[in-house]
Order: sequence, then C-alpha cells, then structure tokens
Amino acid sequence: MSLVLVTNDDGIYSPGLTALYEKLKGLATVYVVAPDRERSAVSHSLTMHKPLRVQKVKEHIYAVNGTPTDCVAIGASKVLPEKPTLIVSGINIGANLGDDITYSGTVSAAIEGTILNIPSFAVSLVVDDSDVHYFETAAEVAAKVASYILEQSLPYDTLLNVNVPNKPVQDIAGVKFTRQGKRIYEGAIHETYSPWGEKYYWIGGGVPYWEHGEDTDINAVQNGYVSITPIHLDLTNYNALDFLKERWEPWISKNSET
Amino acid sequence: MSLVLVTNDDGIYSPGLTALYEKLKGLATVYVVAPDRERSAVSHSLTMHKPLRVQKVKEHIYAVNGTPTDCVAIGASKVLPEKPTLIVSGINIGANLGDDITYSGTVSAAIEGTILNIPSFAVSLVVDDSDVHYFETAAEVAAKVASYILEQSLPYDTLLNVNVPNKPVQDIAGVKFTRQGKRIYEGAIHETYSPWGEKYYWIGGGVPYWEHGEDTDINAVQNGYVSITPIHLDLTNYNALDFLKERWEPWISKNSET
Repeated sequence: MSLVLVTNDDGIYSPGLTALYEKLKGLATVYVVAPDRERSAVSHSLTMHKPLRVQKVKEHIYAVNGTPTDCVAIGASKVLPEKPTLIVSGINIGANLGDDITYSGTVSAAIEGTILNIPSFAVSLVVDDSDVHYFETAAEVAAKVASYILEQSLPYDTLLNVNVPNKPVQDIAGVKFTRQGKRIYEGAIHETYSPWGEKYYWIGGGVPYWEHGEDTDINAVQNGYVSITPIHLDLTNYNALDFLKERWEPWISKNSET
Repeated sequence: MSLVLVTNDDGIYSPGLTALYEKLKGLATVYVVAPDRERSAVSHSLTMHKPLRVQKVKEHIYAVNGTPTDCVAIGASKVLPEKPTLIVSGINIGANLGDDITYSGTVSAAIEGTILNIPSFAVSLVVDDSDVHYFETAAEVAAKVASYILEQSLPYDTLLNVNVPNKPVQDIAGVKFTRQGKRIYEGAIHETYSPWGEKYYWIGGGVPYWEHGEDTDINAVQNGYVSITPIHLDLTNYNALDFLKERWEPWISKNSET
C-alpha cells in the first residue's frame, strides 16, 4: 500500500489538514507530520540554528516545533517507517497563486519533497471573506490528484500547485492545467504606532490585482475551476542566459584574459 | 544618480554587507536596509503577524527586526526617498548554488525586488573552511554587475544569482553565465538528546554532492569562475503542462460535464 506524508503550514490542528488526512486514509497509509502551530508565510525556511522536537500526538500524527520544510525533511527520513511514496501539503486556508507561491510554506513543503525526489503536491482552498470553508471539495480534489500521481507519478523535478474554489463540489466548473500568473504589486504596508509613539510598519492588507491571462492559475479559480500548475525547481531563465551571453560578452572576454 | 538598496541575510553588522556598501558608494547613492541580526535560511519569509520596527543606525543605514524580504518591502517603499533603481543582496558568507537557493534569504531578497519590478541581484562568497574571506573580490564583481544592470537593465521578471570564489581577484579564472545546478540529496539530520534524555533532530551538516554539468553554477565556481545565473519568477514547467493535459485528460472531461 502507498505511504503518504501529509503536512501543512496552518499547523497540526487546522481543519484543512484534518479533512485531507481523513480523505487520503481511504487510499493509502497516511502519516501526518506538521508544525505544532501556524507557520504561514515562512516560505522555504529550514531551521538549522536549533534542534527540533517531534511529538507524537496520536497514532500516525506527529507535531514538530518547526516549519513545513522541517516537517518534510524530518518526517520523510526519521518519522515514517520508510520513504513516503507521496507528500501532500495542505489543505491551506487561502489561495497560493501567482508570484505569491514564493512566500508559501504550503508550497515550500512540496518543494522540499521534490528536492528529496518524492512526488509532491500542495493543495489550497481559495477562501474569500466567507465563513464557510468547503474543505470537503478540496479534499476530494486532493484524493483524485493523489490517485493520479500514485498511478502515473510526476515529470522529473516537478511538483503540482493545486488551488480549489471555495464551493460545494457540485458547483466546481471543472479542472484546468494552468501556468503561474503574475501579481501586479501594490504597496501594502500599513504604518502604525506603539503605545510609546514609535512608528512601526505592518506588512499585509491591500488588494492584489493580477495580470490578465486566459491560461493562468488566477484566471482558472476566478472562473470557478480547480487550477493545477506544474512547478519545477530549475529556476534558470534560459532565454535570459542567451541575452546575457550576448550583451555582456566584453566583460567575460576581458576577465578571461587576466 | 542611481539609487541602490543594499540588504542581506547575515545581518546589518556582517563584514560582507559592509564591503558591498563601501564599494557601491562609488557608483550610486546607496542605502542599507538590513535585518538587525542573522536571518539565514529564512527563505522568502514575510513577517505579517506583527508590526516591524525600522531603526536608523546612522546616515543611510537602517536595521529592521525582520527578514531580508521584509527589508526590501519596507525599504523600497518606506525608507528610501524614492523607489530604488537597483537592489543588491549580499555579500552572503557562503555559496547559494543549485536547489539550495530556494532556502536562501539572500536570493529571496532579490526575488522580492523583482516582484516589485526593481532590477535585483544576489551576491555570495563561496566560503569553504578557510578563515580568510575575500569580500573585496565579491564586492568588485558586484560593482561590475551593478554597473551593467544600471546601464542595460535586466530581462523581464529576472534576477541574477552571482556566486564568487573565495580568492584574491587576480586568481579568478573569469566569469561564466550558468544554469542552476541540481543537488543530490543526502540525508543530513543529526539525532541528539536533551539533558532530560528526550530525542531531538538537528538539521544540517552532511556533505552535499551535485549533479555533473558543464554549464552549471556549481561547476563554474568549482573551476574558479564567477557564476552568474539568471533566475526567473515564473516557476511553471511548461513541458509538464503538456504532459498533464494529455495524460490526465479523462478527468478534465468528466469534471467539465458535471
């Protein structure tokens, strides 16, 4: 039977993680190794300045006082009985779309899995202001994606970033394979003051807006579709490589002569 | 005159940052906005759960109790007199090569700059066990890269990841434009015990080894060259997109009918 490691960045008591765990138990042996508390926007942080504790919460469920990336690194090699066949990170409460994925602890856990050469995906529920969270919809999508990956694996060096609209499953328009969209930056730094009158800056808020694009992740979820984006770890811009080799040539030649 | 924002992840008192600042002052108006202490391996973390303080250390030098990404976000829009024309992150004490760049606070600061649509690069000194650090070599390379970017800008959505061998400048073999190499994972988690006998895990140590490849960043620095890798923010694996559209087709069609 397949062995699945589940983690997240909202922490071990997140209802999104519970929904995912319960659903995936139907298709594999599932272990949860997740942060003991919320670790949002920690990105691909790895804790190297202190030792970490793994606490068994109950059978198959472990809490770590670290980041999602820590959980994958330690979980895959020290907690599970063997190397997992699949890593699933989520269900994140909130979208992970466009450039924002570079901040995401949820996506970074799947990046760490991919570095370890284990097929991995991240799944997020695109929650707006609504109090109602359709975790069941995202869990169903995750189970489907998991079964595809367990059957067909994934292309080399590639993870999937899955975003699910916050709707009952029957209201989902379908599934789209998408490219990562681009967020147009809008300064979102709030100025505030301490009780002693010192100025502080609070990052957040603001309404992001997005580059238009038929085939983007953002466009898919805005139209009610599940978005699945294949993400790879090779960040090289090969076109730019040609540009640089051509335009910066004089410098290289000169230095090579020295 | 150009306006340059300098940051790093080793903290505001790092000699690498000082060397970079002193060198760049020769070509532009330079501001330093950097973490008040070491923030290595924080990746692209953004602090959103608390307000941040900016403290003026002296003219043009500011310390922030946040991550390198925080420093860029706040520095570019709140500290500098106007939007900078260039962001330089470094000089990091230690290489940022291959997949390891996804953990790097140094590289992430340049990613944040690129998201803000400001030309940006990261510069790292490839330090081994030696006690001698040739920051001056890396600073000279950084000044050269900065002057190229100020003159010619950079391709869209693209930053540069620059790694400099730890050698006197006259011993540098030259400059190579490279692709991001691939680290082959080797489990590097140390088991240890607390004074009370509880088991802890400490991530780190271990000797990374690398995929061979003539044109990689790792290969360049191993052969004594400066490595310059263009990195872009679009992480989509377009080849995998075709694979998924073809192979997972039945699922899409089925869901689209509902």
